Amino acid sequence: MPVIALDVMSGDLGARECVPAALLALAADPHLRLLLVGQRDVVEGELAQSRAAQRAAGDDDRGGGDLRSRLEVVDAPEVVTMTDSPREAIRRKKHSSMRIAVDLVHAGRAEAMVSSGNTGALTAIAHFVLKCLPQVERAPIMSAVPNASGFTHMLDLGANLRASAVQLEQFAVMGAIVARDVHGVASPRVGLLNIGEEEIKGHETIQEAHALLRARAATLAEGDPAAFRYAGFVEGHDIFTGEVDVVVTDGFTGNVALKTMEGVAALITQRMRAEFSATAASKLAALVARPVLKRVGAALDPRRYNGAVMVGLNGVVVKSHGRSDRVAVARAVATAALAVERGLMRHVSQALGGTHGAGGPGIAAEGAGARG
Amino acid sequence: MPVIALDVMSGDLGARECVPAALLALAADPHLRLLLVGQRDVVEGELAQSRAAQRAAGDDDRGGGDLRSRLEVVDAPEVVTMTDSPREAIRRKKHSSMRIAVDLVHAGRAEAMVSSGNTGALTAIAHFVLKCLPQVERAPIMSAVPNASGFTHMLDLGANLRASAVQLEQFAVMGAIVARDVHGVASPRVGLLNIGEEEIKGHETIQEAHALLRARAATLAEGDPAAFRYAGFVEGHDIFTGEVDVVVTDGFTGNVALKTMEGVAALITQRMRAEFSATAASKLAALVARPVLKRVGAALDPRRYNGAVMVGLNGVVVKSHGRSDRVAVARAVATAALAVERGLMRHVSQALGGTHGAGGPGIAAEGAGARG
Repeated sequence: MPVIALDVMSGDLGARECVPAALLALAADPHLRLLLVGQRDVVEGELAQSRAAQRAAGDDDRGGGDLRSRLEVVDAPEVVTMTDSPREAIRRKKHSSMRIAVDLVHAGRAEAMVSSGNTGALTAIAHFVLKCLPQVERAPIMSAVPNASGFTHMLDLGANLRASAVQLEQFAVMGAIVARDVHGVASPRVGLLNIGEEEIKGHETIQEAHALLRARAATLAEGDPAAFRYAGFVEGHDIFTGEVDVVVTDGFTGNVALKTMEGVAALITQRMRAEFSATAASKLAALVARPVLKRVGAALDPRRYNGAVMVGLNGVVVKSHGRSDRVAVARAVATAALAVERGLMRHVSQALGGTHGAGGPGIAAEGAGARG
Repeated sequence: MPVIALDVMSGDLGARECVPAALLALAADPHLRLLLVGQRDVVEGELAQSRAAQRAAGDDDRGGGDLRSRLEVVDAPEVVTMTDSPREAIRRKKHSSMRIAVDLVHAGRAEAMVSSGNTGALTAIAHFVLKCLPQVERAPIMSAVPNASGFTHMLDLGANLRASAVQLEQFAVMGAIVARDVHGVASPRVGLLNIGEEEIKGHETIQEAHALLRARAATLAEGDPAAFRYAGFVEGHDIFTGEVDVVVTDGFTGNVALKTMEGVAALITQRMRAEFSATAASKLAALVARPVLKRVGAALDPRRYNGAVMVGLNGVVVKSHGRSDRVAVARAVATAALAVERGLMRHVSQALGGTHGAGGPGIAAEGAGARG
């Protein structure tokens, strides 16, 4: 039964959406337990409101008692805001919902945490408190983006501005494991983001990562939990074709690509709105086209793939989008639960623990000691 | 009267689109002269076809004679293919249309060249033959992308994988000049692409470029041809909001962002097609919505902003998209003509010639000597 700490205060919408999200997630997964981390009166108030809404809707509270028996409120007086710097969040917000949720994972009271808060702060706190798994150099952030036939899983989306060749190789290995464990991709095809000119000089890091990945994919045994197919270089547009399952890049490039996607989608939406409301005829066309456009929107709805996994830490951390509503947050909680149930951390340890020969319990104990 | 060398053989569509494009460009601009560089028989054949098509359409060839008096065919037996590596293109394709068009600029017979060919090969040939202007460290590629209110001009889109802080500063200066000279933006607002976390460590280059740009923008006199307003850091989604006119980044990031845009737009188009043809009702909706969707498509049509300027070289080089049709190529030729007419090269020289104190005719002469 996975226990997940949910930071219900952070993000643009806070407890008003995160508390109902907790109830949705508990209703969807009978094996789930949740720790709701936030200001106790706010959280209890939202829980009471949900109960009242349920009663008003004529719901007989069927299962409601059961849901509540699987959640516990953990008081956290402070909140990390969207504008707090990572440093401020670490130094001055030790009693924030975000920090306490991470602390609960560190203390072993929860196996994963989910937050819709400030990415920079969450990355910093998660690294500071949990530390990377032995042999993992850097923990990237990975998320799904829609492609022509399903989803492409992309990392790093911004946890590490730069990445060495070895780090890119580790991102690929971890990305393939998340794709398999959390998203059910049996034998992930992994591509390395480049700009297509293989012979251009100057990007030695990517060329070196390419060689490492080719070698690693070739030596992996079928059935190895870290097995993947290396597809070589891919370009920006290949993120969306469905020809690879995992796209690997550094956090700077990944973040720019992610924000660019969001920007293009917003621009197209804005242009469609403007054109469909321009004249009486186009307003009529909008009425007729609405159901079809809604289906297009639903297929690309970011809430369907909410929940970016911060992979490679001593604990599972899932970043939910800052503007997440209850449906999106519940989805991120489900992602965290899957990561726990499928043994994501163990698989990452096994795959990277043996990489550089220096692994084993000695290092693990040292890591655990250092973080105490 | 600007003279422009048009490589009519390169690109996915070649002479079949580039030759009619030349006639469109000449018809649109009575001050233009064109050198059509390509296999003479192919080019003459296309010219004859255009003439025949005109006659068949009942056109009295009004102006046709005049158009043809402003074009000249320059024979080039070879063609750089889309798969030729930059090195192969330089070493083995000295008689290609791309190379000869660049040579014509170098020899002073043309003031600019336009090609829809292989970007890597064009970048390499242009740098090899023309060299950078004195004090310009690297020549970036700049193009327009649509935003909510018009266009954002973005550079570098792939000529230089990495860029130092000084190079990013130069890109900003050159970008502002192109925005003003070619695109008529009176006082360009320039943003530096980042991932929004100002305090994250590790990206010293961008922080340093930020400081250089802040200092430079502050010291520029009103009316200086290189005057611009520095807007600080922007993120991927800001490319599309219209809050800045110029977005500066290194060629790796810029190219990934550009291809990502294309990928998202293609994905959305594909989903719309699929949904609008899914059922009888949605096919009917497609009929009603078509005129509106066409207007959305037209506003975002890449042909409207075709023509990426390779800025900072001893000569104007414009890269037209590989899949450009005649309308798009004609647009790229018009962009090249504007760059020549407005004195783009002179403005870049003036703006960057004085930057590092070591400028002046001595260096310029040395640069000119080195390229002979």
